[in-house]
Amino acid sequence: MTVQIAGVASTQFGEHPSSSTRELFTDAALAALADASLSPGDIEELYAGNFIGDLIDDQAHVGAMLADYVGARRAASMRTESACASASSAARCGVHAIEAGNADVALVGGVEMMHASGIQEVTDALANAADNEYENAAGLTFPGIYALMAQVYMDEFGVGHEELAAVAVKNYENGTANPIAQRQEETDVESVLESPPVAAPLHLQDCCPVTDGASAAVLVSEEYAEDRGLETEVSVAGSGQASDSLALQDRPDLARTRAAERAAEDAYERAGVSPEDVDVVELHDCFTIAEILAVESLGFFERGEGARGAVDGETAVDGRIPVNTSGGLLAKGHPVGATGVAQIVEITKQLEGRHPNQVADPRIGLSHTVGGSGASCVVTVLEGGA
Amino acid sequence: MTVQIAGVASTQFGEHPSSSTRELFTDAALAALADASLSPGDIEELYAGNFIGDLIDDQAHVGAMLADYVGARRAASMRTESACASASSAARCGVHAIEAGNADVALVGGVEMMHASGIQEVTDALANAADNEYENAAGLTFPGIYALMAQVYMDEFGVGHEELAAVAVKNYENGTANPIAQRQEETDVESVLESPPVAAPLHLQDCCPVTDGASAAVLVSEEYAEDRGLETEVSVAGSGQASDSLALQDRPDLARTRAAERAAEDAYERAGVSPEDVDVVELHDCFTIAEILAVESLGFFERGEGARGAVDGETAVDGRIPVNTSGGLLAKGHPVGATGVAQIVEITKQLEGRHPNQVADPRIGLSHTVGGSGASCVVTVLEGGA
Repeated sequence: MTVQIAGVASTQFGEHPSSSTRELFTDAALAALADASLSPGDIEELYAGNFIGDLIDDQAHVGAMLADYVGARRAASMRTESACASASSAARCGVHAIEAGNADVALVGGVEMMHASGIQEVTDALANAADNEYENAAGLTFPGIYALMAQVYMDEFGVGHEELAAVAVKNYENGTANPIAQRQEETDVESVLESPPVAAPLHLQDCCPVTDGASAAVLVSEEYAEDRGLETEVSVAGSGQASDSLALQDRPDLARTRAAERAAEDAYERAGVSPEDVDVVELHDCFTIAEILAVESLGFFERGEGARGAVDGETAVDGRIPVNTSGGLLAKGHPVGATGVAQIVEITKQLEGRHPNQVADPRIGLSHTVGGSGASCVVTVLEGGA
Repeated sequence: MTVQIAGVASTQFGEHPSSSTRELFTDAALAALADASLSPGDIEELYAGNFIGDLIDDQAHVGAMLADYVGARRAASMRTESACASASSAARCGVHAIEAGNADVALVGGVEMMHASGIQEVTDALANAADNEYENAAGLTFPGIYALMAQVYMDEFGVGHEELAAVAVKNYENGTANPIAQRQEETDVESVLESPPVAAPLHLQDCCPVTDGASAAVLVSEEYAEDRGLETEVSVAGSGQASDSLALQDRPDLARTRAAERAAEDAYERAGVSPEDVDVVELHDCFTIAEILAVESLGFFERGEGARGAVDGETAVDGRIPVNTSGGLLAKGHPVGATGVAQIVEITKQLEGRHPNQVADPRIGLSHTVGGSGASCVVTVLEGGA
């Protein structure tokens, strides 16, 4: 049973001071349904990623809440949570439900409202993705965790901050063409290096912003798309999800994300493709170092050579393997519970030829979403021309 | 692709002052794997329900954490959350993953550590399952929500507290035979009525206790069970999950759980059975009134007649339709993130003929788990004799 993507949408990413979790998700869901030419009553399954809503707004049980507000009260609904990969897990559940023959229409998505709270509260809430007993208790939060990974990587492969900064320069530039992106201004290597230090070697422009946003995608069975006459062009070719130790301290190599390697291996195998076949990528650049680790885990660069991508233009929109044409988490923004489906939204638009940073005739797209420091990872391969 | 249950286990339910979320779940998971004659490395997918771990212990991302500690780091892992139905949602995802042909072995389960926190903190955390904007803000917490449902029901159908109390009397008695049950003493109608009032008309013995506990089940594909020579006797015949308004105020009838009716309708249809075919039931008796509403939603009693079940002995272990032979949430206990799979554990043992309150030759079993006041509900039909 091939699963097709009938419609996608993201809200504006940034600050939504007068909105709420339920309102923002409903906006994205209704826009995705309109894009699919379907109605809320068509939804049979609803899977929604949300990470810190209960911690910040005292609201859990958001699957049911979102089904209620979208107007899909009859649907099966649940929240999925894999930290920053929560929405990718939602998408994977939706794909399974359809592939299992249990549903024809699944709405998958995610939402996060982060701005209403202070930066300290958000940082503390996000730290729930790390190991509370062994990391948070030692004072580690995520900028520090990724800084440790960056330090090991830079030391092992002789990479400097200038090369990390090239990732931000590329993604900021991409973001300026994407109307939903939170950051709408370019930067340069010098500005990244001179931005305020956060956790050595990472400075402010090495880090993704705090973002309000929601994304949704309507997944349908091939048969349903035919019966309803839906114009679907993109299908889910395969996905992989894998895990690793929760705490960084338990990993033999801090500069390597094994969950991503495993998830990619499974996704490639299920999709019947190899890294060379991939035409466009949205990956988890929560920090500049994360993009470098990711392009290696996904097989686009050899170990230790990932920094070359942004420096030499290989990952540019017109490069060998375009990465984060949306602006990525660094510029588009990172509403953590929504990010995985936000990536699928961007890849779908690329494969449908309607992306603001359109690459030339892509056929295979890939999304890569990391939970925490890499304790979980989801890789999804999409195929155009359905 | 038929999904079979290869092994099940629950920890002791009650107080585990020297354990933790990761330890308790690992205990249940390893016991379920042993029951299945499988190893942690065999797990391809891990879905775990957990509701208030982040709120109480600052630990989210528990899917990955549990995969890590169980020894299944390569597995896909995620947390599912549908309030008190979180583990049932986990089970449903595991079934879909196998039915989709994406995995042969899924570990599904759930865990909740509730005792370490005070009753006020637990009550506040559980209130995250209700509508924070429209219910919690008005001072409603769950005993109050179910008390409202009870008041409407009792008024509409002329039912007294004595009839609600009969549910507690039955389930307490069943619990005394179940070694894992938290409450190990019988009660009588008078004791229920004289127990401390909580929210009129509900008294303390109308309410489930605060519980630490974990449960796990190993799901396998039929083909895998054959290849590995596993002795499986129980299969998943069908499941349904549905939603309703998050807030009680939006429902036309407070004394009716429509999500349960819809979930049951879907589960019966998929399993190809009707209520008359069901031989044994574990259902969501978080409060005495909840069992009465549930037996009606599931089609075992006409509307307004559910109280008859416990009063007349129709829902007793040797009755027409045995309900909560485990002791149910009222006596076995209710570790919220684990409850749905805990019910599946009990039903599996019944269908395998190894339950401490064994009913005579059951062939079809059913579990029913409610999220919040009924904004979500999962119904799972299991079949023996696989």
